[in-house]
Amino acid sequence: MPIKIRKLNASDADFQAQLSALLAFDASEDDAIDQSAAQILADVKARGDAAVLDYTRRFDRLDADTVTALEIGQDELQAALLQLAPERRAALQTAADRVRAYHERQKQECGSDGFSYTEADGTVLGQKVTPLDRVGIYVPGGKAAYPSSVLMNAIPAKVAGVQEVIMVVPTPDGVKNELVLAAAAIAGVDRVFTIGGAQAVGALAYGTATIPPVDKIVGPGNAYVAAAKRRVFGTVGIDMIAGPSEILVICDGTTDPDWIAMDLFSQAEHDELAQSILLCPDPAYIDQVEASINRLLAGMPRHDIIRTSLTNRGALITVRDMAHACDIANLIAAEHLEISAAEPQQWADRIRHAGAMFLGRFSSEALGDYCAGPNHVLPTSRTARFSSPLGVYDFQKRSSMIFISEAGAQTLGRIAAELAYGEGLQAHARSAEYRLNNDAK
Amino acid sequence: MPIKIRKLNASDADFQAQLSALLAFDASEDDAIDQSAAQILADVKARGDAAVLDYTRRFDRLDADTVTALEIGQDELQAALLQLAPERRAALQTAADRVRAYHERQKQECGSDGFSYTEADGTVLGQKVTPLDRVGIYVPGGKAAYPSSVLMNAIPAKVAGVQEVIMVVPTPDGVKNELVLAAAAIAGVDRVFTIGGAQAVGALAYGTATIPPVDKIVGPGNAYVAAAKRRVFGTVGIDMIAGPSEILVICDGTTDPDWIAMDLFSQAEHDELAQSILLCPDPAYIDQVEASINRLLAGMPRHDIIRTSLTNRGALITVRDMAHACDIANLIAAEHLEISAAEPQQWADRIRHAGAMFLGRFSSEALGDYCAGPNHVLPTSRTARFSSPLGVYDFQKRSSMIFISEAGAQTLGRIAAELAYGEGLQAHARSAEYRLNNDAK
Repeated sequence: MPIKIRKLNASDADFQAQLSALLAFDASEDDAIDQSAAQILADVKARGDAAVLDYTRRFDRLDADTVTALEIGQDELQAALLQLAPERRAALQTAADRVRAYHERQKQECGSDGFSYTEADGTVLGQKVTPLDRVGIYVPGGKAAYPSSVLMNAIPAKVAGVQEVIMVVPTPDGVKNELVLAAAAIAGVDRVFTIGGAQAVGALAYGTATIPPVDKIVGPGNAYVAAAKRRVFGTVGIDMIAGPSEILVICDGTTDPDWIAMDLFSQAEHDELAQSILLCPDPAYIDQVEASINRLLAGMPRHDIIRTSLTNRGALITVRDMAHACDIANLIAAEHLEISAAEPQQWADRIRHAGAMFLGRFSSEALGDYCAGPNHVLPTSRTARFSSPLGVYDFQKRSSMIFISEAGAQTLGRIAAELAYGEGLQAHARSAEYRLNNDAK
Repeated sequence: MPIKIRKLNASDADFQAQLSALLAFDASEDDAIDQSAAQILADVKARGDAAVLDYTRRFDRLDADTVTALEIGQDELQAALLQLAPERRAALQTAADRVRAYHERQKQECGSDGFSYTEADGTVLGQKVTPLDRVGIYVPGGKAAYPSSVLMNAIPAKVAGVQEVIMVVPTPDGVKNELVLAAAAIAGVDRVFTIGGAQAVGALAYGTATIPPVDKIVGPGNAYVAAAKRRVFGTVGIDMIAGPSEILVICDGTTDPDWIAMDLFSQAEHDELAQSILLCPDPAYIDQVEASINRLLAGMPRHDIIRTSLTNRGALITVRDMAHACDIANLIAAEHLEISAAEPQQWADRIRHAGAMFLGRFSSEALGDYCAGPNHVLPTSRTARFSSPLGVYDFQKRSSMIFISEAGAQTLGRIAAELAYGEGLQAHARSAEYRLNNDAK
């Protein structure tokens, strides 16, 4: 049975409404999950290690007397790495090297050294950049165990200069994922605890006798983890709460349609809520892609997920021309944007909003997911309008530096006092005026 | 009656516990306020302008037939600027110029041009930086009307390249603050609406027939505004939800004690929950500061607020030496840190966590609040451990750029496929393998 994939024409009068309906996604939280996460957090805050052990026993059927018994040592991480098949180990190592190289470049080019400048009167102003002290990385256990996520979350933190990266990963029934442990070894993760859920988030945020408190928690997780992260935000920093993954392909109609079909599949296979959309000015080409989709689907092991995703959330959209495609891409602000076209840079220059852009026919999203170098943790659900890929900057913070000279205090003191009186803040004004040389107290 | 300000000794065995108690602040949200904000947001989302008009009538006693009637035109902003007393107008203009100059430097020095580099096989990787399209700035009305906040929120957005900055400011009973309007004129705010509360946040987040939706909302507000901002986060970006303001002064005991007392006042006068703390190795100097506090308090118009703040949340702490003071400052991670000492840079080098550092005896925090140049929107409540002053970077976002050459697709495709098979994602693997030249489909 062929996939019934939505076909739209962007020149239709009601296209804007159709697009809004297509992109709509109910991200509302489940109150029961939120309340449950809140209770677990409060319990971990109050009882520390004992609470972590209780929940790990209950949810992961893992019986330990101490949290220390749930820690995986560096020797076990290294052993996991050593026992990988050579080809897989080499692939993981090359991916890690490339991710590190990109993020090193990001650190160099993006003001990580801070700056300072001196004004004529000797006043020095600047910005100091420092890494976070300690970061927690949540790695999901069970079926969706992604070693690439370990690399993408841990490496930017280490490149930023974070001293201690603590990874938590649930191991239900004690089953460990060796590829995840190997990735932790390669990424330079400092400590690993086999705990998960809201209890792991609470342990990282508040600290326990065994687990030191971190300054920020990053990494994907299920609804309980997301709810717990929202609740500890402020006590620690968190990354974005990710929505379903998305790919938007702009194609000029000259790429092998099988390639485009498979690129759409590669997003759709993540889960039923993932979204794959194609924009193309050529309706005949769209039909070819549709034919490829229907011919290739049966060969995919995850065809059920792909079918549901493409049927419910996919779309093939005819646009007037490539410029029109770019306009629509800016409205969609996709997590992943492939521009599969000749001379793609001209179209990339028109794109203001996208998490990552994949330019040219050879830049399949899958390369970026694993080993191109840039981060695969990207803003979803149109948040690329205001947020960025995970990066070194997420593991650094800035402090303003203000060194006012005696001469500077004379001019600035009068200005500050004038404005402070205007705001009714007299102590502010007096504090500035005290530094005036001729101030009569 | 002298102020009973807490005196601690950082060498005491239980100092850590005392410090934790001192810093503890209950930031828990009020459920009733949160529910009320949620209802208002839902109503604004559903009814748009009509809901905004209803709430403005109810909460601000401002009766308008249309939201357009609540907009303040550029001519009125310019008029507000022109009618200011010349001295105040000049002060505001100089402050704006200095804030702009600092943020221009921040933009130049911090990677705003993005970067790209080409690998040996022709693959190009990089990062594109773009400003947000449209930003909303919330400015509180009523008693705490701060024109300096207008400058500090709007100028970095305009420097970042945001095309449209929309300010909302409630004007209960129709009373406008001319200094706030003048600041909007100087800062280059594009549109101003006299609306406030959760209804203004909803209008900016969802858009109405009259008010276009923004991509991010920044600026301080009351508990309803904070609750509404938390709830629209994800639909739009938001800045940090600010806690009470704090100052931490490290003094070597050689600054005029009146200066330090007034600096502590300048924070305490903000509100009863503000926190002022002094660290000093010299107990005799601490007694001098205490004497100054008691002598100067009566002369402050806001002495009641200052007394409550210093009594409930202030502290004078004796430390072993200046290095010890820096260690404690890193635990406190203060919003404002003054290092009032000879050769302050040596101590600043030891500070990892602070929103802004004010170095030397002449760098009173008040200068930074108004006109030094760096932003006065700073991380509070120990969040300087993981977050930064408001800056140009808050109004920009990054997109990863990935242009894989045909040659690059050969090497990277094999690595990606190997790892994708390891994660059980076959469409990812096939999508990479399609780009291999010798791939047999």
